[in-house]
Amino acid sequence: MDLHFSLSGSGDLSAQIYAQVRAAVLDGRLAGGDRVPASRDLAASLGVSRGTVTAAYDRLLAEELLESRRGAGTFVASGCVPPTPAARRARPGAVTPTALWANPVAPPPGPSGVAFDFSVGVPDASLFPLATWRRLVSATLRRGRLSAGTYDAPGPGAAGSRLEAEIARYAGRSRSVVASGGDVVATAGAQQALDLVARVLVEPGDVVAVEDPGYTAVARLFATHRAVVRGVPVDGEGIVVDALPDTARLVYVTPSHQHPTGVAMSLARRIALLEWAVRHGAVIVEDDYDSEFRFADRPLEPLQSLDRDGRVVYVGSFSKSLLPALRVGYAIAPTTLTAALREAKRVTVWDGDAVTQGALAAFLAEGHHAAHVKRATRVYRARREALLDGLTAPDGLADWLEVVPSAAGLHLCTLFRDPALDDVTIAVAALTAGVHVEPLSVRHLEQPPRHGLAFGVGGIPRDGVGPALTALRGVFSSSRPGRPAAG
Amino acid sequence: MDLHFSLSGSGDLSAQIYAQVRAAVLDGRLAGGDRVPASRDLAASLGVSRGTVTAAYDRLLAEELLESRRGAGTFVASGCVPPTPAARRARPGAVTPTALWANPVAPPPGPSGVAFDFSVGVPDASLFPLATWRRLVSATLRRGRLSAGTYDAPGPGAAGSRLEAEIARYAGRSRSVVASGGDVVATAGAQQALDLVARVLVEPGDVVAVEDPGYTAVARLFATHRAVVRGVPVDGEGIVVDALPDTARLVYVTPSHQHPTGVAMSLARRIALLEWAVRHGAVIVEDDYDSEFRFADRPLEPLQSLDRDGRVVYVGSFSKSLLPALRVGYAIAPTTLTAALREAKRVTVWDGDAVTQGALAAFLAEGHHAAHVKRATRVYRARREALLDGLTAPDGLADWLEVVPSAAGLHLCTLFRDPALDDVTIAVAALTAGVHVEPLSVRHLEQPPRHGLAFGVGGIPRDGVGPALTALRGVFSSSRPGRPAAG
Repeated sequence: MDLHFSLSGSGDLSAQIYAQVRAAVLDGRLAGGDRVPASRDLAASLGVSRGTVTAAYDRLLAEELLESRRGAGTFVASGCVPPTPAARRARPGAVTPTALWANPVAPPPGPSGVAFDFSVGVPDASLFPLATWRRLVSATLRRGRLSAGTYDAPGPGAAGSRLEAEIARYAGRSRSVVASGGDVVATAGAQQALDLVARVLVEPGDVVAVEDPGYTAVARLFATHRAVVRGVPVDGEGIVVDALPDTARLVYVTPSHQHPTGVAMSLARRIALLEWAVRHGAVIVEDDYDSEFRFADRPLEPLQSLDRDGRVVYVGSFSKSLLPALRVGYAIAPTTLTAALREAKRVTVWDGDAVTQGALAAFLAEGHHAAHVKRATRVYRARREALLDGLTAPDGLADWLEVVPSAAGLHLCTLFRDPALDDVTIAVAALTAGVHVEPLSVRHLEQPPRHGLAFGVGGIPRDGVGPALTALRGVFSSSRPGRPAAG
Repeated sequence: MDLHFSLSGSGDLSAQIYAQVRAAVLDGRLAGGDRVPASRDLAASLGVSRGTVTAAYDRLLAEELLESRRGAGTFVASGCVPPTPAARRARPGAVTPTALWANPVAPPPGPSGVAFDFSVGVPDASLFPLATWRRLVSATLRRGRLSAGTYDAPGPGAAGSRLEAEIARYAGRSRSVVASGGDVVATAGAQQALDLVARVLVEPGDVVAVEDPGYTAVARLFATHRAVVRGVPVDGEGIVVDALPDTARLVYVTPSHQHPTGVAMSLARRIALLEWAVRHGAVIVEDDYDSEFRFADRPLEPLQSLDRDGRVVYVGSFSKSLLPALRVGYAIAPTTLTAALREAKRVTVWDGDAVTQGALAAFLAEGHHAAHVKRATRVYRARREALLDGLTAPDGLADWLEVVPSAAGLHLCTLFRDPALDDVTIAVAALTAGVHVEPLSVRHLEQPPRHGLAFGVGGIPRDGVGPALTALRGVFSSSRPGRPAAG
């Protein structure tokens, strides 16, 4: 047997021998029928007592990984098929997921390594106030705080409760959301908030209306709760309320900065949507994912603060205003739902990360978040203006692209002027030219797809915008052979 | 109008006035019909330009929170009902959760403030190697790591992948689990792992078998996935395989240290369970929640490593071996399930906390976890032995309690010798005597409840065990009036 043993002086030597023989069988270094050394020989070569080896062998024999053949010695069991992942994969009748999960949707490849990255929904991590955050994390990593983080109180721990109170104050101040800490359920990102909402509101077969084009990941989320997801068109005022299916139990919208088109829902449309929800007994889920970054003076009120009937669940996130990696979001719900949302959270994850929650509560309370948003807005505004200039300049991309007006958020959306162009083709060609932009058509669900490109400003420095658009102009020019490429 | 304004020099003064009037209306300080000051007067009293005030009023008028009455001035809109949570709560026809969530189960009150805390499932936070952890968190909180944490790669970020590889190594070394990083799905605690498993495996109406007595929170979790949850009796060898319902699609077990009785599933029973699963096309979910802490030499192999047919999902957690507040757990699944589990995670939470994941990966890789478990095992062993001594001593609690043998984990379970005693009554009486113990009967689902008490060793110092048991003996003595209380 050509098997290397490495025994460490401390610890149970017999257990080490056992584990190493076992591992060798399982990973195929020893095959069924291989003879293992006599216990006396192995003991001598390893410098351990014979009993140490026989104890290990006995255990392997009991587990039928080894077998003893009278007079011949000890062997790896001949019927022993190593239960490696590979072997398990090949088994007929293996465990499979339910139909809903049988064909996992592969996520789109990331844009890593491109020269110009217009990824949508990603903030600039270099703006994150890391020194402040480290200080607050360090302050939170104290014994009392950690032990109080969870399990010692019914429901979310102390860090979670503190954070929820701070989120209520923050959403009230910055977005006029009407809430106290008890109305807030802190979550691991907006996606988890939406998941909890779907869990407590959606019965299998319920109709859920989403914006079309819209967040396809959210549509998928509702579908995994066995909802019937219906895509409702979006025009210049937001979701078309008249097109909502009468049977919708839940309507998911992004009114501040529609994802991905960027339009803000008009006040008239907001009121119409709220009235529609009351009339139809539906719930509105308002995802306010990136409207902290405002580029016009007067933001419209969130649906939540216009809601007089407790029909709106407001969902927010710190993934855009701070960092996705922190995984903190929240739902602010009517009081008729908060107990259910809290139970859903308790049953499925108990609570969030105590350290991050504690640090974020302090970050909000000490005003760092407001200061960061202000600073970051300045940076994004400059990038956005450079982008708008390039998109609308006559010698820029104005021939090909029409900018969808928007007043907030981390990306701009454009529509193709030429109905013959395909946005996926353009995006693929752009990528080979070093520019990552996101095609609009793939964000459609059932409406006839419009073609266009979305440009995020979180991943590209201001001075990258010009060269990127020049490269993109080249892509458009060469996409239309009848027209000379721009210089 | 008796309204206090506090304007800060920086920022949009008009927006501040707007927000403060609005807040006053919403929280009831201003009522419908109240007159607000003329813009000229308010401007004078605040020392701002009149235009600043009229801009604020215009916005409030546009939102119909104020109304202008010709010749009379400006008033809070008479029909204005503040959409406060209280008002929303009172509305008839408000949004309500689905039937599953209509009656949220209130969590049991925590044992905070008791003199002697035998809480089950809670490690001793004071043992947590905080200095090391702070160092690793600090090292993880670097720019490159954070931006790479998520969103830039399909699926879990770099921190998550590193952690999954380390978990595979750890589970392989410490528990003989057969896995590579690709088989591991890191989650926010074992509960989230179980939630993802239920999501991808359970169709509404599927039968899920759980141990009875068992983890009632897990039973509830499966029920919220619309499973029909069936409780299967547990004897001295673990779950009674012969009593499993033939239709069970999923069997949830805690074989290393059955929760709450503490028995270890025998090897014969393990093999029988695996064979049963193959025969019935069922999945076994093995929750190995606290068997890092071993008090006997030879732990039995996990079901996962005995499994040759890819029928076992192994679920683990760092909540017991480190801290619940960290919220890190994992599922190690057959390769036929990992893609679905990853998609379920991506759809619902995207990824875990990048900082905690990065720190934990380093903590495992540098051997701190193994060292911590070794150190903590020594501490828990001393407490456990003191507990066993007290429970089995003739002048201790041996008259009332029979200890269920177990070889691992953070708690011991006992059964009442006197069938007339009620464990909830005893636990309540114990609490008034300053001792928190957990009654066994409430952990039952449908089997006839056995009565007993579980004693966790994570929350009580060694020298607290003796006084606690003396106090508990007093409780038992006075519970049986016919018998003199022990001195």
